[in-house]
Amino acid sequence: MPDVTLTISSRNYSSWSLRGWLMMKLSGVPFEEIVVDPDDAAAREEILLLSPSILVPCLTYDGYRIWDTLAIGEFLHEIAPQAQLLPSDRLSRARSRSICGEIHSGFNSLRSALPMNLKAHFPKFKVWSKAQGDIARITQIWRDCLDAHGGPYLFGEFSMADAMYAPVATRFRTYDVPLDPVAQAYCDRIFAWPAMQEWVAQALAEKEEIEELEVEF
Amino acid sequence: MPDVTLTISSRNYSSWSLRGWLMMKLSGVPFEEIVVDPDDAAAREEILLLSPSILVPCLTYDGYRIWDTLAIGEFLHEIAPQAQLLPSDRLSRARSRSICGEIHSGFNSLRSALPMNLKAHFPKFKVWSKAQGDIARITQIWRDCLDAHGGPYLFGEFSMADAMYAPVATRFRTYDVPLDPVAQAYCDRIFAWPAMQEWVAQALAEKEEIEELEVEF
Repeated sequence: MPDVTLTISSRNYSSWSLRGWLMMKLSGVPFEEIVVDPDDAAAREEILLLSPSILVPCLTYDGYRIWDTLAIGEFLHEIAPQAQLLPSDRLSRARSRSICGEIHSGFNSLRSALPMNLKAHFPKFKVWSKAQGDIARITQIWRDCLDAHGGPYLFGEFSMADAMYAPVATRFRTYDVPLDPVAQAYCDRIFAWPAMQEWVAQALAEKEEIEELEVEF
Repeated sequence: MPDVTLTISSRNYSSWSLRGWLMMKLSGVPFEEIVVDPDDAAAREEILLLSPSILVPCLTYDGYRIWDTLAIGEFLHEIAPQAQLLPSDRLSRARSRSICGEIHSGFNSLRSALPMNLKAHFPKFKVWSKAQGDIARITQIWRDCLDAHGGPYLFGEFSMADAMYAPVATRFRTYDVPLDPVAQAYCDRIFAWPAMQEWVAQALAEKEEIEELEVEF
């Protein structure tokens, strides 16, 4: 058995950690977790999007580091193809990669205005107009994929694309974002996925180490 | 023959267009270009990183849109494996994806402080300290890959990873960034790649449509 570890940081705040961890669970590859203290300066900078993301998530596979979330997903898809992290049809796979890539490099307004915070709830939160544009685009992506592939998840069963968008579902819940019924039902299905429930339960139990987390831009 | 088009915008300013176009050239797949007017408001916002990147580059393959740069690279790798956009060894492929992912989602300080502008040259340009951190990280990535794979490009022959980092080489030249000899030689090799020479020549001949391009953050 190869030695497999996934380095993550705060379960409450680190959206990238959540994505990588869900992909690991989806793959079925057994792994150990290493949790970086979110009080550590480097981890804090990364969670706040102030430094290039190279700390988390990081998959170490028999000593070989894979430190980007999409790269982790592609690697897991190669070593555990039966888990279908990516769709089996080539064009659907290209669409999955397009929407995974879009959230990987974009939606900065949403990220900075509505940081992931599973413990919090802000009823009737006022969303900045630029983040509204991101929300409109994301729900459009969801509708397109659910229409094209018939649900219940973006490409049928839960896959890498759902893991990539899962932190968005948590933001919509935390910040009480009004959604159309299709998007709302999809968010609810994200929360119903067993691995997601496990993550959320652990996040809620996480010791509060970041007392004054504020996004600076 | 499938109908293949690549939508790009300014050759002078659009770093994402350059990446996608170099990948197309690398793949050997014949394609037509569609150039979006960079004077168009949506294109301008995208070049300035003010809107999610969905306009360019966009590969349309027999009517099917693939709109993220990494997704385009992965698709081309699937339909033209002989072009070796990704390394043939699994762990090297994972490293290629890690460094491609890192530049896809990160290095925002570099991007905003040193926007791509092939026509310009700013001798002794003062680089903001946060961008210096990005420069140090990028040149470290280059050294690691050149060491591990023996050059002349990051994974041996020119591949997707070089296409992803090619706009950085242009920024280093435009803004007169001092580099160690290894990084400098690598930049020079990027410029020596025939497809890159073709792009640069066309960029220099591009009609100046954006008169007052300024990055706002």
